[in-house]
This record gives sequence, C-alpha cells and structure tokens, in this order.
Amino acid sequence: MGRSIKNFKVIKKFKTARTGTLYTTHGAIETPCFMPVGTLATVKTVSPDELKKINTKIILSNTYHLYLRPGTDTIEKAGGLHKFMSWNRPILTDSGGFQVFSQSKLRKITEEGVEFISYVDGSRHFFTPERVIEIQNILGSDIMMVLDECAPYPCEKEYAKSSMELTLRWARRSREAFNSSIVQKFGGLLFGIVQGSTYKDLRKISAQETVKIGFDGYAVGGVSVGEPKELIYEIVENTVQYLPEDKPRYLMGVGTPEELWECIERGIDMFDCVLPTRNARNGQALTSVGKVNLKNAEYRNDFSRLDPECSCYTCNNFSRAYLSHLIRSEEILGKRLNTLHNLNFMLKLTDKIRKSIKTGRFLQEKKKFLKKYKGG
Amino acid sequence: MGRSIKNFKVIKKFKTARTGTLYTTHGAIETPCFMPVGTLATVKTVSPDELKKINTKIILSNTYHLYLRPGTDTIEKAGGLHKFMSWNRPILTDSGGFQVFSQSKLRKITEEGVEFISYVDGSRHFFTPERVIEIQNILGSDIMMVLDECAPYPCEKEYAKSSMELTLRWARRSREAFNSSIVQKFGGLLFGIVQGSTYKDLRKISAQETVKIGFDGYAVGGVSVGEPKELIYEIVENTVQYLPEDKPRYLMGVGTPEELWECIERGIDMFDCVLPTRNARNGQALTSVGKVNLKNAEYRNDFSRLDPECSCYTCNNFSRAYLSHLIRSEEILGKRLNTLHNLNFMLKLTDKIRKSIKTGRFLQEKKKFLKKYKGG
Repeated sequence: MGRSIKNFKVIKKFKTARTGTLYTTHGAIETPCFMPVGTLATVKTVSPDELKKINTKIILSNTYHLYLRPGTDTIEKAGGLHKFMSWNRPILTDSGGFQVFSQSKLRKITEEGVEFISYVDGSRHFFTPERVIEIQNILGSDIMMVLDECAPYPCEKEYAKSSMELTLRWARRSREAFNSSIVQKFGGLLFGIVQGSTYKDLRKISAQETVKIGFDGYAVGGVSVGEPKELIYEIVENTVQYLPEDKPRYLMGVGTPEELWECIERGIDMFDCVLPTRNARNGQALTSVGKVNLKNAEYRNDFSRLDPECSCYTCNNFSRAYLSHLIRSEEILGKRLNTLHNLNFMLKLTDKIRKSIKTGRFLQEKKKFLKKYKGG
Repeated sequence: MGRSIKNFKVIKKFKTARTGTLYTTHGAIETPCFMPVGTLATVKTVSPDELKKINTKIILSNTYHLYLRPGTDTIEKAGGLHKFMSWNRPILTDSGGFQVFSQSKLRKITEEGVEFISYVDGSRHFFTPERVIEIQNILGSDIMMVLDECAPYPCEKEYAKSSMELTLRWARRSREAFNSSIVQKFGGLLFGIVQGSTYKDLRKISAQETVKIGFDGYAVGGVSVGEPKELIYEIVENTVQYLPEDKPRYLMGVGTPEELWECIERGIDMFDCVLPTRNARNGQALTSVGKVNLKNAEYRNDFSRLDPECSCYTCNNFSRAYLSHLIRSEEILGKRLNTLHNLNFMLKLTDKIRKSIKTGRFLQEKKKFLKKYKGG
C-alpha cells in the first residue's frame, strides 16, 4: 500500500543513534532535528527571518489551530501555509488529533471520526482521517501526520488497546486518502503514528501494523502527556525496535535537552516541543550551564551574558540584568529575545549531537553536556 | 546663565518650517525628527537592531518609569541606559513630570518638588528638579528635560498661571543643577519646557522667561492632553514665535501624520508620540492611503501589501490577511510587524517632510500626502 519514495537516508550511526538526511519538497533536513512549534502560522514572538538566521530547517504547525484560525479557506486563498506566513522551508503539520483530545470540549469519537467544539467560538466541527489529510494538503505541508487518538496517561489497558486499534484503522484510511489523486498536489510526505500507551505489547502491535500500512516516516505518539521521563525512554525503546531503519522516526511533543540526548541515543530522528518557546516567554532560559529563571532576584544586577557559550543576537547584545528587567516588566522584547535564544540553544544542541554521532563521540559529548547542564 | 554650545544648526527654511541638524554626544540628528518612545528601556516589541534598520536616529525614554523599574541603581551599574539597552544612538529622556501627573496617585506638589506613589509597588517617592537632573545624568541621556508641572486640560487660568510660574522656578533650579560639576559627565544637553496651558499671554511669558534662563533646546509642553488639535496648532504658534531660531523646538507627545505636517509648518523640529507604537499593537496601521484597522473583517482575505508604497520588512513579506490573522489571534509577531511598519512610516514621513523643506516643495508635498492619507 505504501509508496517506495526514498525520502530519508541514514548517513552515520553510533549504536542505535543515527544521523541522516530527510528530503522534502522545500529542502533537505539533517537529522536528528528539533522543530520549533509555530501553532498559529507563527513561531510565537520570532520572525521567519530570525528563524533562518539561527538556521531553523523545519518548523511544525498545527492543523487543528489553523483550521479554526484563520481557517483553511484563507490559507488556500493565500496559496498555502508557506506563502501565508512567508516561510519557504519545510513545515510539518500535526493532524490535530492531540489538540482535539487535549484542548477541545465535548469531543465525541466515533468510528468515522471525531466531533469537537471550537475553543474560539464554540462552533461544532468534525474531523475524519480523510478530512485531516485534505486540510493538510490545502496547507501544503511538507510532512503530514495521520489523524490519531491520543490516549491519556495513565490509561487502562482495555481503553489503550481499542484506542490504538482505532488509530490503526484511521491510519489505513489516511493512507488511502493520501494516495488518492485529489491530494498530493504539493508532494508532501505522510507519517504514521504509533500509539499503545505504556503497554509494551500494544506498542509492538501498533508499530508493526503501522509499518505494514507503509508511511514515509513513523511517529511515536501518546508520549509527553504527563508520564515520568523514564517511561518516555521505555516507550521509545519498545517502539523504535519495530520501526524500519530507512525511515525517519519522530517523537512527538518531546523534549528537554536531556530527553533529546536520551531519545536520540535510542534511535529518534525528529522532535518538537513547545517548552523552549513557552518557557522563554515566562522567563526561563536554557543555557549551557543549566536553566536560568530570569525572574529570580539574583539576575537583577547580573550584567553577564545569558549563556557564556552562546553567540546568538540576544547573548551578543544584552545582559541577564536587561533581560530580567524586560521579563519582569512583561515587555514583549524580553519574550522575543529569550525565545530566540532558547530556539538557538535547541538547534545548536542538535548540531552538536549530530556531530557527535558522526565523530563517534556521542557518549562523551552527552556526558560532558549533561554534567555542565545539570551543574554536576 | 545658559551655555553657548552650538548644538543646533538650521540648514534650510521654508517660511516658518525648517530643517536642521541637532548635535549630541551619540551623534547628529537631522530635524524635523520623530522619536519612537522606549518607555522601559525598550521601544515596545522591536529590537535595537530593527530600529537601526529603519534608520531611527534618536529614541525617547522615560525617567519616571526607569527610575521605578529597573531603578537608577541597576542602570548606573550597567554603565548607563545606552549600554543597558544596547542602543548606541542618541536618547532623549523626559523629566518624569508628565508621568508623575498623569500616572501616579497621591501626588503632592510643593515648592520643593513632587511626592508620588509608585504604580509598581505603592512605595513613596520624591522628585525635585535637582534629583531629576541627577537621575537623567545617571541614565546618560543625550538630551535631558527639566522637571515641569504639566497642567491638565481644560485648566482655570489662575491654576495655569501659578503652575507655569512653578515650572519656571523649577527650570532655574534645573539649569543650576545641570551646570554644577556633579552632573554633565556624559555631556548631555538640557531642554527647557514652555507651559501656560491654552492661554496666549501665559505661553508668551513662559517662553520668554524660559529662554532667558537659557537652554540647549525648548519644548512645548502641556499639549496632547485631550485638547482639540486646532488648539495644539494655536499653542504652537503662540509659543514658537518667542523661541530663538538657533535652538531646536520639541513638541512633546505629538503626533499624528497630519499634526507633524501642521506643526513642522509652524516651526517645530522634534516630536515623540506613543500612538504609532501603541496603536500598532492594537492592529491599527498607518499607511500612505490612510489608517488600516487590521481587525476589520475586510482584511481577512486581503492578500495585498499593508501599504502599497512601503518597502519595510513587514510590507515586503506579509499580507494584510496574515497580519490581520496575527492581530486577531493576539500573536506577538503581529504586534511586532505592525509596530515596525508604523515606525518606519513615521520616519519615512519625516524624511519626506525634510526633503520638501529643502526643495521648497513643502506645501505641495503636504497637500499631496494629506489628500491620499485622508482618502480625499
């Protein structure tokens, strides 16, 4: 059923970790990669120009949010999401599955799809696997995700099983919709999503069956929903072993710098996470010497560089004291500068990890980084 | 009593309008000029880098706000306001007079100075003319303003008179404090402020007496406090005629594009106003074809350039539809892009006006601009 497009190439491996190249309509992406989140057709606070300057190769945007605001119609008229937001590099769009389950009220799941109430105006909407592919096609996504049901944590096995099976049936319908002649006008890729909650046997079935359907990449879904981080690592291990070597693996909604090292070590190639941007707006900076909470009193008169090892625009021009002042005063520039720094930090971190895989120094670099980061 | 520093040179006049050069420690500024407002050591939403790209030559910052947050102590430790905020071009700081009267509760005016309650934490503070000069000197302002009492509008003549006289006595004390050896370590200029509310005879006395004290420039204060714009023009006329030709004239808190043309025609050289930035954040854009309120339904699917005649980053990259989406969704990038555009608009407008004075085409250009701007 799947296509045999060669969209991914592993360049170098270090045990289970790998670095590779992912090919999309809007260009190639080196993996492992971190995707800044651009929910509403904007990575909050920063401009496309700034994203390019820090060498962002791909961003994620949210089908659910864009469908509600500004609406698919407007983006279609604009000529797709890339043109609408003036971003000519790759975009991955999620399917909206996670948002329907985490952010919508009155959702009603049937075999056909999921009904939900808009958080914007209370209107009623219905997502089916086919509709979600259609929307992502209108957006012009480089990488589309299938509609899945994201089970909560903790989750009874019975529910996890039937939810995972529904996701599989939806995945087959998504694949068919994608293959149909109506879509694919922009040449996007389609990724499947492995579910199964924390259950090893369910993850195995989900992975194997999803691979049978055949996708351009595979996501590990249903993580980062409140479970302890050790469980994330376990789920990744229990999933990755059933995924093909020659396709990219995407861990949805993860993660922290530490989680990146741990999950890349276990074979993950792609990440997205709102924390570097969301926390930035609240004053939390990621630095080589650990987290810096700019609201803390100690930074009021700290005229040193935010991160001694960073040379982003923020670090090159402003002190911790100034950033602290902006954050305390709720000035937008503070949110901007801190977001820019945190994104640069995450992107430079993936650069470092990729390099360490290539040079075979992954474990040494991981240890060195985490020691400094955790202040050990 | 005044110094005889040659800090201003008129280059060309067109009737009462003039274009000139104002010299400060951080560089020369062509006048007429518009100063973006950077209240809390940041022009809201935009970076110093962006301000430079749109050719901002001078910004205004607020003594009152900086004194309260982050506090003079922090800025002194940073080595002054320029270093603190990473802006190496001129800064004019107001005296805090206007803010004490418009934003503080429980203010108590005495001959000595003004007591007020901090809006940040409710603490009690006391500003004297001398203290305000001292603070601005710590900030390292290129252009300092004297402490004045800004009378409300409308204002009884009796009150306007005694308030204006108090401002004069404070101006003398400010001048003395400024001349003392303690201050002037950064080589700033000091501007006096003419008050007198809407009363022609009071404005005359205030202007003549302020000029007698001798300052590096003269501001027209107490305008833009709710009076109709025709009254602003009248006050400007009633003040400017008593000000020396060889010193810059600054109209505080003004104005709109129309007010710029009108007041420059009447001899004003410098302006500051929060409206281009504040309104930008609320979705109102200034364009060559008039104001565009991005929240209006008509812009949802308007994929044209925000301003057909503008080539700023915003106009070059984003449509009205995209900006409208960002503003509706309260996305910071929307506030940013619109602020950048509005500031660029104001700066390009002053470029145009300066040029029209030089070429003697002031009246034609004014008419042409306003016809288009007002949709006539």
